[in-house]
Amino acid sequence: MVERRTPIPVGEAVKRVMDFSIQGQTEFISINKSFGRYLSEDITATNDVPHFDRAPYDGFAVRAIDTKLAAQTNPVEFEVVDHIGAGLITTKSVEAFQAVRIMTGAQMPSECDAVVMLELAKVYEKDGKSFMSIKRPYNSGDNVSYRGEDAKEGDVLIRKGTKINPGTQAILATFGYAKVPVARKPLVGLFATGTELLDVDDPLEPGKIRNSNSHMIAAQIERTGAEVLYFGKLPDEFETCYEAVKQALDKVDMLITTGGVSVGDFDYLPAIYEKMKAAVLFNKVAMRPGSVTTVAQFEGKLLFGLSGNPSACYVGFELYARPIIRKMLFTEKPHLRKEKAILEEDFLKANPFTRFVRSDLTFKEGKLAVSPSGLDKSNIVMSLAGANSFIILPGGTRGFEAGTEVDVLLLEDFTGNEWPW
Amino acid sequence: MVERRTPIPVGEAVKRVMDFSIQGQTEFISINKSFGRYLSEDITATNDVPHFDRAPYDGFAVRAIDTKLAAQTNPVEFEVVDHIGAGLITTKSVEAFQAVRIMTGAQMPSECDAVVMLELAKVYEKDGKSFMSIKRPYNSGDNVSYRGEDAKEGDVLIRKGTKINPGTQAILATFGYAKVPVARKPLVGLFATGTELLDVDDPLEPGKIRNSNSHMIAAQIERTGAEVLYFGKLPDEFETCYEAVKQALDKVDMLITTGGVSVGDFDYLPAIYEKMKAAVLFNKVAMRPGSVTTVAQFEGKLLFGLSGNPSACYVGFELYARPIIRKMLFTEKPHLRKEKAILEEDFLKANPFTRFVRSDLTFKEGKLAVSPSGLDKSNIVMSLAGANSFIILPGGTRGFEAGTEVDVLLLEDFTGNEWPW
Repeated sequence: MVERRTPIPVGEAVKRVMDFSIQGQTEFISINKSFGRYLSEDITATNDVPHFDRAPYDGFAVRAIDTKLAAQTNPVEFEVVDHIGAGLITTKSVEAFQAVRIMTGAQMPSECDAVVMLELAKVYEKDGKSFMSIKRPYNSGDNVSYRGEDAKEGDVLIRKGTKINPGTQAILATFGYAKVPVARKPLVGLFATGTELLDVDDPLEPGKIRNSNSHMIAAQIERTGAEVLYFGKLPDEFETCYEAVKQALDKVDMLITTGGVSVGDFDYLPAIYEKMKAAVLFNKVAMRPGSVTTVAQFEGKLLFGLSGNPSACYVGFELYARPIIRKMLFTEKPHLRKEKAILEEDFLKANPFTRFVRSDLTFKEGKLAVSPSGLDKSNIVMSLAGANSFIILPGGTRGFEAGTEVDVLLLEDFTGNEWPW
Repeated sequence: MVERRTPIPVGEAVKRVMDFSIQGQTEFISINKSFGRYLSEDITATNDVPHFDRAPYDGFAVRAIDTKLAAQTNPVEFEVVDHIGAGLITTKSVEAFQAVRIMTGAQMPSECDAVVMLELAKVYEKDGKSFMSIKRPYNSGDNVSYRGEDAKEGDVLIRKGTKINPGTQAILATFGYAKVPVARKPLVGLFATGTELLDVDDPLEPGKIRNSNSHMIAAQIERTGAEVLYFGKLPDEFETCYEAVKQALDKVDMLITTGGVSVGDFDYLPAIYEKMKAAVLFNKVAMRPGSVTTVAQFEGKLLFGLSGNPSACYVGFELYARPIIRKMLFTEKPHLRKEKAILEEDFLKANPFTRFVRSDLTFKEGKLAVSPSGLDKSNIVMSLAGANSFIILPGGTRGFEAGTEVDVLLLEDFTGNEWPW
């Protein structure tokens, strides 16, 4: 007996997952640990930047009014009454025709409103005192960086949901965010099911293969920004799987299983969901690979039943698990980023279903170009290693020729897309 | 007195760094910790995949020869002598007109050479025995995945220098790489210099600013794939800096300082290099920002003296420190990836020097488009947070209009570029 399932479109399946109510949570972590995390709050300027008027060059701080008569034929002389580097403040009061030698980044003396660049001043000593002279006039504000020029206190600088990059780190430090509000990493439980599975350090045995899916999915979970809790592999035995799945669910935010989700004689996940009374959101999607991808919910948590087939597993995770994780990371664009690219190879075999073809996206003279990243048999892990994207080939009666513009989903991306594609 | 320095072209500066003799090192780490690391050796197939002939579908394994006369009008009957799931092996010897019910991924019985898909067989029982019948013939090999179909033992599957992604993980697991040869992360020491610097958790003081560069550079080091050892900040005092730099160098593979590298009155790095007898590779580059970037070598280690100006610091790291780190990660493409893009905004101010403009690269209808990521004052950290690229604007007497094709360097990329750009 082959169970009948009704496939739903990909968009409908994604919608059913994303309609599930689940929120991200904030935690505060040291700025030193925050690189690569996702901001859970908008970051605002806690002070003006600069927060004082400062010299953007090495030179002499002067009162512009004293320079007005300076000319090639009329050098004007200033007594240099102090010498300050960045981080220091003059204790002198600068009077008419006085100057302070000042280095880049130092605070302007309060009486001064212009900086003469070092190379435009003639420096000399007279009677044990320092002097400099200039041959051109300055306006008030010349070579001064004014308070608030870069940012004003209260400005929103970075939006929540942004992945923290080196520039973000600089801003966090500038504004004193020693503790940074970031999204707590969702904890994603993971089981691989299948009596055929060996561990990575096991020698091969007849009929058995090493478990590669859980290592792959663990990396996909990490890449998405969540944390993985790997519970191990399970044999194709109903009771063992049922107990393991039910108990694991308490420990995680969501649970992923690979394998056991199809209609084979030893595929027990559908029956497990039934016995748990988990509500199945869908168990068949009009897509290749990954048509048997199943998602259910139970007591406020999502269960992702991904295929045991590596390619189907990979695609199922990226289309359905990734966006809900990214939503918990506060991004407003949780879905795979979609772009247009030129197909570089023929893909002539038609297929009635929407296909997601593992592919290698490159740039050719400023244009996006894409080609399948290896043989497209769904059990071939080799093509996954070279994949940085999926080509979306709509289902239908025709194939696709090289040169056709196709939609591509980007895998190594942190910008994302809003739905709908 | 302003010290005279002779600027060299960017390409020459990069070459001087990359000519420096330094090798990456291998360490073996658990596959579970290897996501995001860089392979230090080529990965080869340690066995055929599949390593046995297997069923790619749920169905019945048969001898094709027995099916030859099957037709719509002539169903051929098979006795079903066993029932195996993936991971199991039949103990039966399959004889003429016998079949084994077999699930996806299971090993083919040695006598069988075709699989009848489940939905094409009529299943029934007679006298307590299982039977199935078919109405079409099969050829030897129909619906069988043969040993070695995906990969042959000895095939090189992934090249050294590749960053480990989820697909790579699947391959490593498939071939039993429980310990993975990866590049040891170079340990990069880091000092921020400047009397003006406060720590991130300090309240602001007149004339002082919080140290943002070391947080930014630490993230750039991490993004590149190395590990950072932050030694703290140093005041602008010659002896303090000299001792700190000299002692730190023993503990790291290379050392980065920010600030103190220009020609200001309190910029002591040049004098420190001199007192150490470090060989300066260059101390001025014909570029903006970052012209005072200085690189020296001392006893087999590189010292990067980056500007204290955040933008100059950022650019200096990416152009000169990043490629030598990536080289130590075994990649053959250590430099920033260069692509062509359409400039989306006017950039009309000419500049005699090559400029690296912080920018936001996007895709518009399959084409790369780029625009500056904020005001281009070199002290504005705000624009760094939005930057995923640098626009390269060649030096000259003209500006650049929107619509011009420009070269762009990608910052969030793990593919890289060989030199020369």
